[in-house]
Amino acid sequence: MSLLGFEPRGVVAFFSDFGVRDHYVGVVKGRILKELEEWDGHSLEIKFIDITHEIPPQDVRKGALLLKFSYKYFPKGTIFLGIVDPGVGTERRALLIATPKYFFVGPDNGLFTFVLREQEPCYAYEIDVKKVIKFPYSSTFHGRDLFAPVVAKLLLREKIETFAKPIKKEKLVYLDFPYPLKIEEGFRLSIWYVDHFGNLITNFSKELADKPFEVWVNNKRVRLVSTYAEGREGEIVSLFGSEGLLEIAIKNGSAFEVLGYPEIEIRYSKGL
Amino acid sequence: MSLLGFEPRGVVAFFSDFGVRDHYVGVVKGRILKELEEWDGHSLEIKFIDITHEIPPQDVRKGALLLKFSYKYFPKGTIFLGIVDPGVGTERRALLIATPKYFFVGPDNGLFTFVLREQEPCYAYEIDVKKVIKFPYSSTFHGRDLFAPVVAKLLLREKIETFAKPIKKEKLVYLDFPYPLKIEEGFRLSIWYVDHFGNLITNFSKELADKPFEVWVNNKRVRLVSTYAEGREGEIVSLFGSEGLLEIAIKNGSAFEVLGYPEIEIRYSKGL
Amino acid sequence: MSLLGFEPRGVVAFFSDFGVRDHYVGVVKGRILKELEEWDGHSLEIKFIDITHEIPPQDVRKGALLLKFSYKYFPKGTIFLGIVDPGVGTERRALLIATPKYFFVGPDNGLFTFVLREQEPCYAYEIDVKKVIKFPYSSTFHGRDLFAPVVAKLLLREKIETFAKPIKKEKLVYLDFPYPLKIEEGFRLSIWYVDHFGNLITNFSKELADKPFEVWVNNKRVRLVSTYAEGREGEIVSLFGSEGLLEIAIKNGSAFEVLGYPEIEIRYSKGL
Repeated sequence: MSLLGFEPRGVVAFFSDFGVRDHYVGVVKGRILKELEEWDGHSLEIKFIDITHEIPPQDVRKGALLLKFSYKYFPKGTIFLGIVDPGVGTERRALLIATPKYFFVGPDNGLFTFVLREQEPCYAYEIDVKKVIKFPYSSTFHGRDLFAPVVAKLLLREKIETFAKPIKKEKLVYLDFPYPLKIEEGFRLSIWYVDHFGNLITNFSKELADKPFEVWVNNKRVRLVSTYAEGREGEIVSLFGSEGLLEIAIKNGSAFEVLGYPEIEIRYSKGL
Repeated sequence: MSLLGFEPRGVVAFFSDFGVRDHYVGVVKGRILKELEEWDGHSLEIKFIDITHEIPPQDVRKGALLLKFSYKYFPKGTIFLGIVDPGVGTERRALLIATPKYFFVGPDNGLFTFVLREQEPCYAYEIDVKKVIKFPYSSTFHGRDLFAPVVAKLLLREKIETFAKPIKKEKLVYLDFPYPLKIEEGFRLSIWYVDHFGNLITNFSKELADKPFEVWVNNKRVRLVSTYAEGREGEIVSLFGSEGLLEIAIKNGSAFEVLGYPEIEIRYSKGL
Repeated sequence: MSLLGFEPRGVVAFFSDFGVRDHYVGVVKGRILKELEEWDGHSLEIKFIDITHEIPPQDVRKGALLLKFSYKYFPKGTIFLGIVDPGVGTERRALLIATPKYFFVGPDNGLFTFVLREQEPCYAYEIDVKKVIKFPYSSTFHGRDLFAPVVAKLLLREKIETFAKPIKKEKLVYLDFPYPLKIEEGFRLSIWYVDHFGNLITNFSKELADKPFEVWVNNKRVRLVSTYAEGREGEIVSLFGSEGLLEIAIKNGSAFEVLGYPEIEIRYSKGL
């Protein structure tokens, strides 16, 4: 910790596939507070911010994207607790990642792919389960019995080396999020994420656009606008959304309902 | 602010149509805390209370009603952040409303109709986007890039006049929530809101009932009771609900599932 | 309170059937803070933890189970506010339960069945509605008008005896959660709870297993594993879950979708 030269603040940003129908989310938070119980009473300075708990069950890719879209907007010292963990109870590693600004806690299954790629420096640690878990514990709910105590240890400013050991980043699990496919006259895009409004968020970022281009959806050209509202009622439009990625949208409607997962291409504009 | 003679407390009550599946809600909160980062460390005294984020996409009317049903129950100094914003990125105004008890932040599209009508005194300000937004910013996510920083400014007790200018309330956008329609022997009601339990909340308030009346649903008289439980299993009943408005309900069931949007009338009782 | 020798901390763990679409949850929290408004400004030390608000409407049994699965993981002093209240506004009692570790506030309809059975000592109080409720109030929203003020009184360390009177635990309402049915060669189980992942949580706990046994689902034997991931894709397995209860699960799938509510039996293993 001293290595990184900063002390964690009390913000815990939590995302998972636990859903909000069961007790899992509340119990993880309760457990973090309970771990701090015998501390000096300052545990109430901790602030939990839920990113979302409605990641589809076991959808690690979606979790990785949501984290990418979120973490840079949080204050220095935020601890991100991410639990989408189909391998819970198996040999999969439990991870702690530390950067000069943030901590990340969760399973080693690719959930932190973007963080590992985007943050430099970025230190990875394998959590020593035996030094954290108290018996009896559950092999199916590591959120409560393993990751919650780790978050508490960070909040209590325990030295990371006492419960985790450094691991080379190259050894970790990464998910593949490919760049847009280069085609003759431009790019073929993938849809990375469909949001609650039905907007289709692609893998094409502003930076890739080095010359004038057009956006084609299912072989029809669509307008590139700068706000959702610019479209006409029912018109399919494209725009660069809040993450700098190209989105396909419909004004006051759901592009996903109308289009599903359409073919989307970037085609360079032809000179006149 | 000094104008109003009070200092804001740290409660931020947040409602939106963002849903809870995506990262939007968490990111807005993260951004508010991040804005306070360089402050004196007291940012952790801020308490976020979610009213709901499940307003149907772009349903400004429902947002206005939810705020009406909620705001009076919050403590003095609460900052209400309301984002249902189909016009995001267009010329629609960004609003700040200040009353002696509360602040309200969000788009000028009618979301604050009831507040503007019910609170006196009530000061409206147009937010100067250029003085708030930092570049680069998104034209599709003003919750994160415009409204979150405004909330932070209020929490930091910055003078409103440094980032917003007064605007006459008459210039603002209002939604029309009409009174019940007067008919020969009473009123024809509108359904304003259907809640999670399937209760149909109408626009008929206790105060309008100046003489004895009966409640008729689809041309059948229903009983006026005082608690949901008073009904018999499956019986359609009416009662004045928690907001003082007449509701149609079914004991242990959903009136909405059984009736949809029925015709509801108030008919004055006839003397014998 | 002094009777119990501890002071409540500021954690309020809240669960209900209010859903997250309406304003009810936010308003209850707002009201608690508002009640503390004239206090000394420390109300911001209160931390709300939502367990869930998606208990199916009026499903008191599910509420009781969720509380059982949750409360032991919270820190000392936590106030549990539980509102699943089909009898709101009727003569049903309003309850306050105090143990050396926790407080519980809500209707007397069985919601606290497990707490009353598991916690010793455990003191029950009937809330004196007239000493708590302020006029005007709603007979349909006791969460806001009755239970929220009671939570505030606990946070303000008011003497319980000033707003509630002791009541014998035997007089309270209990729900029946029967043990597994003894059959000739083992037990026939009930399904207590289906979680968000589709896992079927039964009423068979580890402690009941005094000799080697097999798990049979719809008359087919299934493997007893120790983690969800141990199953093969699509295999029905059984395991002791995070609450120590036997669960039926499918790797990366939903047992509930495949099986609904199957017949589940424990059969003692036969010697060779």
